[in-house]
Amino acid sequence: MRKVTFGGANSLDNFIADDKGRLDWLMWGKEVAEINKDYWQSVDTILMGRKTLEAALKMNAGSMAFGDGNIKCYVFSRNPKTPVPDGVELISDDACQFLASLKRRKGKDICVMGGGDLARSFFEAGLIDEIGFNIHPVLLGAGARLFYEMDHRINLRLIECRTFENGCVFVKYQVEKPRRQKKTKK
Amino acid sequence: MRKVTFGGANSLDNFIADDKGRLDWLMWGKEVAEINKDYWQSVDTILMGRKTLEAALKMNAGSMAFGDGNIKCYVFSRNPKTPVPDGVELISDDACQFLASLKRRKGKDICVMGGGDLARSFFEAGLIDEIGFNIHPVLLGAGARLFYEMDHRINLRLIECRTFENGCVFVKYQVEKPRRQKKTKK
Repeated sequence: MRKVTFGGANSLDNFIADDKGRLDWLMWGKEVAEINKDYWQSVDTILMGRKTLEAALKMNAGSMAFGDGNIKCYVFSRNPKTPVPDGVELISDDACQFLASLKRRKGKDICVMGGGDLARSFFEAGLIDEIGFNIHPVLLGAGARLFYEMDHRINLRLIECRTFENGCVFVKYQVEKPRRQKKTKK
Repeated sequence: MRKVTFGGANSLDNFIADDKGRLDWLMWGKEVAEINKDYWQSVDTILMGRKTLEAALKMNAGSMAFGDGNIKCYVFSRNPKTPVPDGVELISDDACQFLASLKRRKGKDICVMGGGDLARSFFEAGLIDEIGFNIHPVLLGAGARLFYEMDHRINLRLIECRTFENGCVFVKYQVEKPRRQKKTKK
């Protein structure tokens, strides 16, 4: 089954953008560039919520994802009339059912991008397999949250931890199967 | 001037206890024991809020702090009638003014313990010098927060990052002097 990953750059207090949506605290470097390069080669599908799409379009950072025919991009919105750019498919059905079915199809890994609202649903449904964060040396204090509150505890297994010269700490975890996930056959 | 430190064990989603106050996710080990031993030798003062005191008494973990005559313990509560155990001094004056004055006195380092409510005030007043966390491989989903929202961004400098065999990641940062974010006029 395809691996579903969630992650990105965050502040130590787990914000992914400050309270004005700013990303000026992000640090770049060779080490992150290499990790990103490897990562994007392992993925052929991106999932995001409407807010993340809007943020990506605003900062014009979505060009890679949307412009590259090798990566399929799905945006979830309950409103079926949400406008999306070319190359992006709008999904207004149940996000978890959609992802569960996507995982069973053949393909490369699947990337869940952006804020914690969509990821929370996927975490709660036990659909996320791996998470990776580049923890930046900053407390943003407020902004867009990486994690939303969840209805149960999720155990992780540390796969990797690397410290970069700029003071970022990159951590990667395998998500252990949530216990309540035992589903009885219908 | 004495160094003020804030830290402890947290989940990757920055909770210090789950939504039932449980700490059963905490992992112990030689490596942490050594860090703790060195740490407690560098400190002669503990500051905490009322809720943290109550939690500490409940789990009977405060014995070391309160029983050891070498460590002075102050608890902050706006209610001057808050009951505190022997060896603990109740402070109902302004916490930041109290800490600022404490920093100027001679002594070892000062430990800010527990939840993020008291720490938030100290962060906002620029009184915390160093932070250290033992990030546990778990998403607790909900509970007592390590960080509360703050009115400005705080830059950090990574001092140390160590990975433990049990999958915990220990990080230590120096807090840079806070620079109030200038609000952009629109």
